[in-house]
Amino acid sequence: MTGMHPRLTTTPAATTVFTMVLTQGPVSRVEIARRTGLSSAAVTKAARPFIDAGYLEELEATERTGPGAGRPASPLVIRPDREFFIGVKITHDDLIGVVTDLRARPLASAHRPLTATAPEGVVAELAALVTGLLDTDPAYRRRCHALGLAVSGDVDKAGGLVRYSPFLGWRQVPLARLAAQATGLTVTIENDVKSLTVAEQWFGDGVGASSFALVTVGVGIGCGLVVDDRVIAGSHGVAGEIGHIPVGGDEPACHCGGRGCVEAIAGTAPLVAAVGAATGRGPLSIEAAIEAAHAGDAAARQVFDRAGHALGLAMASMANLIGPERIIVTGDVPGLAAYELFEEQVNRAFAAQAFGAAADCRVLLRPRTFEQWARGAAAVAIQTLFTV
Amino acid sequence: MTGMHPRLTTTPAATTVFTMVLTQGPVSRVEIARRTGLSSAAVTKAARPFIDAGYLEELEATERTGPGAGRPASPLVIRPDREFFIGVKITHDDLIGVVTDLRARPLASAHRPLTATAPEGVVAELAALVTGLLDTDPAYRRRCHALGLAVSGDVDKAGGLVRYSPFLGWRQVPLARLAAQATGLTVTIENDVKSLTVAEQWFGDGVGASSFALVTVGVGIGCGLVVDDRVIAGSHGVAGEIGHIPVGGDEPACHCGGRGCVEAIAGTAPLVAAVGAATGRGPLSIEAAIEAAHAGDAAARQVFDRAGHALGLAMASMANLIGPERIIVTGDVPGLAAYELFEEQVNRAFAAQAFGAAADCRVLLRPRTFEQWARGAAAVAIQTLFTV
Ligand SMILES: [Zn+2]
Ligand SMILES: [Zn+2]
Repeated sequence: MTGMHPRLTTTPAATTVFTMVLTQGPVSRVEIARRTGLSSAAVTKAARPFIDAGYLEELEATERTGPGAGRPASPLVIRPDREFFIGVKITHDDLIGVVTDLRARPLASAHRPLTATAPEGVVAELAALVTGLLDTDPAYRRRCHALGLAVSGDVDKAGGLVRYSPFLGWRQVPLARLAAQATGLTVTIENDVKSLTVAEQWFGDGVGASSFALVTVGVGIGCGLVVDDRVIAGSHGVAGEIGHIPVGGDEPACHCGGRGCVEAIAGTAPLVAAVGAATGRGPLSIEAAIEAAHAGDAAARQVFDRAGHALGLAMASMANLIGPERIIVTGDVPGLAAYELFEEQVNRAFAAQAFGAAADCRVLLRPRTFEQWARGAAAVAIQTLFTV
Repeated sequence: MTGMHPRLTTTPAATTVFTMVLTQGPVSRVEIARRTGLSSAAVTKAARPFIDAGYLEELEATERTGPGAGRPASPLVIRPDREFFIGVKITHDDLIGVVTDLRARPLASAHRPLTATAPEGVVAELAALVTGLLDTDPAYRRRCHALGLAVSGDVDKAGGLVRYSPFLGWRQVPLARLAAQATGLTVTIENDVKSLTVAEQWFGDGVGASSFALVTVGVGIGCGLVVDDRVIAGSHGVAGEIGHIPVGGDEPACHCGGRGCVEAIAGTAPLVAAVGAATGRGPLSIEAAIEAAHAGDAAARQVFDRAGHALGLAMASMANLIGPERIIVTGDVPGLAAYELFEEQVNRAFAAQAFGAAADCRVLLRPRTFEQWARGAAAVAIQTLFTV
C-alpha cells in the first residue's frame, strides 16, 4: 500500500500492539506487555505513533494495579472514527458496498445491479457506488482513503490481480489498479471467502481463537482457514478448497475434473438437480426443492440427507488434518436454508468421522448477509494497512 | 526445559538468528539482517550469547561487500560439536537410539529389543540404551544433556505426557518425567510423525519451504504439516490425520469408527488382507502380497491400485485445503515397497483430484530408516532448546 497513508506499522511490535488494542481493547500497556512478551518500553514506543496520528488514545486512569504500583494503568483504546473504509463484494449480478469504521462496523451501505461483467463496466459501476457511499457523510470524504474488494475465485492479493473468477468470467484482470484509477483510493483485493475469514478473525466469531475454519455453503462449498493466527494462503495460491474433498466415492463427477467432491453433491445446483431427478419433478428452484423436503417428500429428504452427510465428512476431514478450535458455518440465503435442513446429518457425519478429540471442535451456524461479506472486504483493507 | 541448560534463547530475535545460522549457515550478519528484517545491532546483540557460550563462531572474513563497504563480512557458523543430543524412537518391539550433533547429524546409534511394553520396563531399557550411547565417546558424557523421545499416538509435548499410544497400549503415561529420572537428562517427548517432520523442517527436505507435508505410509497412514514455518499441532491435540479422510465412499469400516478411510484401504494390514481375499490365498505376509503383485497377479494388482488411488485422493484433499509447497512421502520398509508398487496410481489420482494450481505441488519419495526417525526425536530436543 502506498500513497495516502503514512505507514504507522513498520515493525512487528507496532503491528502486535495496534492489533491487540483494535481487536481486544481497551487494554492497558501493562496487560499488552504481559500478553505479548514485549517490554513496557517497547509497548510505549510502538503505541506512540498511533497516538500521535489519532488512531489510539489513552482512557482516563481508572485503576491502580496494586498498592505502591506506581503510575496508574491508563488503558489504550481505538478511536474508531479516525478513519473510514469502504468494502465492496462483487458478485456476477451486483455490487454490495459498505462504509465501515476502524473496527469494521458498517455505518452505511449501498447496492448497484450489474447488467454485464466486463471489467471496465464493473469498475465504472464501482466508482459510482463509491461516490454514492462517500457522499453520505462529509467525514467519509475526508477520512476514507482505502477500498477493499472481495471477489470469488483465484485472487492474487499482493499483485492486485484477479487471476481467475469463473462467475465473473475474468482471467488476469488487474482489478486493484483499475479500481484505484477509477476511485482515487488505495485498493486491496482478496478472495471473498478469505475476506470474510479476516472479518471473523479480527472482528467476529474468530476473535480469541488462534485457529478456526469458516465454511461457506451455497452455489460453491468454500472454506477459509486460520492457523496460528494466520489465514492460510496456499503455496500455489490454492487453499481451503474443502468443496473438492472426494467424500462421495466415485460419484458424481465434479466440474473441477475430480469425482465424488462434496461440492458436486451439496452445492446448490447439483442438490437441486438431484431433488428434481429423485422426485420425478424435473427442473426445480432451490426454494421448491427445500419445500419438497420440508413437506416430507421421502426422495427429496434423502437427497438432502446425502448432502449433509457429505458436508459433515468433508468438515471432519478438515478437522482431522488441521484441528481448528471451532468451525463457523455460513453461506448464501438458499444455501443456509438447505443447511438447516441437513444440519443434523452434518453433525452426525462429523461426529462419526472426526478422529478422537477432533470431535471436540465446536460447529457454529452463523448467517452472514452480503453486507457482512462486503464488510469482509473492508476488514482486509484494515488488516493490510496495519500489518507489516 | 529446565535444569542443565542456561537459556540462551530468551527473545524471538535470538531464536530467529540462531536458527538461521543453524539451518542455513554459514551466513553473515548483514545477510541475516537482510533476510529477517532485524537491524544489524539487533543481530549482533542476539548472536553474542551464543558466541560466548561456544555455540556459534565467526569465520575468518573472506569477502568485502563492496568498495568502501567498511568492515568485512564475517560469516557466522554453528559449532556442531558444542553439544550432543540423544534421540530415541520407541516402537512396540524395540528402541532405536542415536547420538547427534547440533545439526542433528547421527554420530552413533544403538538398538535394544523390547520384550514387554509396560512403561517401567521400557524406561529401564531406555536408560540402558542411553548409557550405552553415552559411553561410546567421553565427549558425549560431558556435552550431552538433552534426550528426545518419539512415540506414536497422542503425545502432549508441553505436559511431557503420552496421552494415548495404541501400539504401546499406553494411556496417560508421564514419560518425560520417568525418563528424566532414569537418565538424568532433560527430556522432550513428541509424536513420532511430528518428530520426523521437525527433522525435515530444520535439517532435511523441508529446508527452504515455509509450508510442506510429510506423509508416512505403513501400518498407519500419517501426516505432519508445516504451515508458515510452524508444525500444526491442532487445537484439540489432533492434526495431520490424513489416514482418516474418507475417500473410499462407504467402504470399508475403519478402526477409528469412520468408513472409507484411506488407512482402512492402504494401511499395511487391510492391504494384505484384501490381497489375501482377492487372490484366494488367505492370510499372507506383506512381502508375499507385494511379490504376488510384482508377479503380475491381476487380483493383487487391483488391490494395490485401489490403495494408490485412495492415497492419491487423500493427498490431493490435503493439498486442496492447505496448499503445501511440497509433499515428502516416506514410511516403513514394507510400506515403501508397497508404495513403489502403487506410486503411479497415487500420482494419477493426485493429479486428477488436486484443484487447479494445487497440482503444482511436488511429491518426493524419500526412504527414512528408523535411525532417521530417532534423529527426528533429537531434532525436537534441539528445536525445543533453541526456540522461545
Ligand atoms: Zn471437485
Ligand atoms: Zn479411520
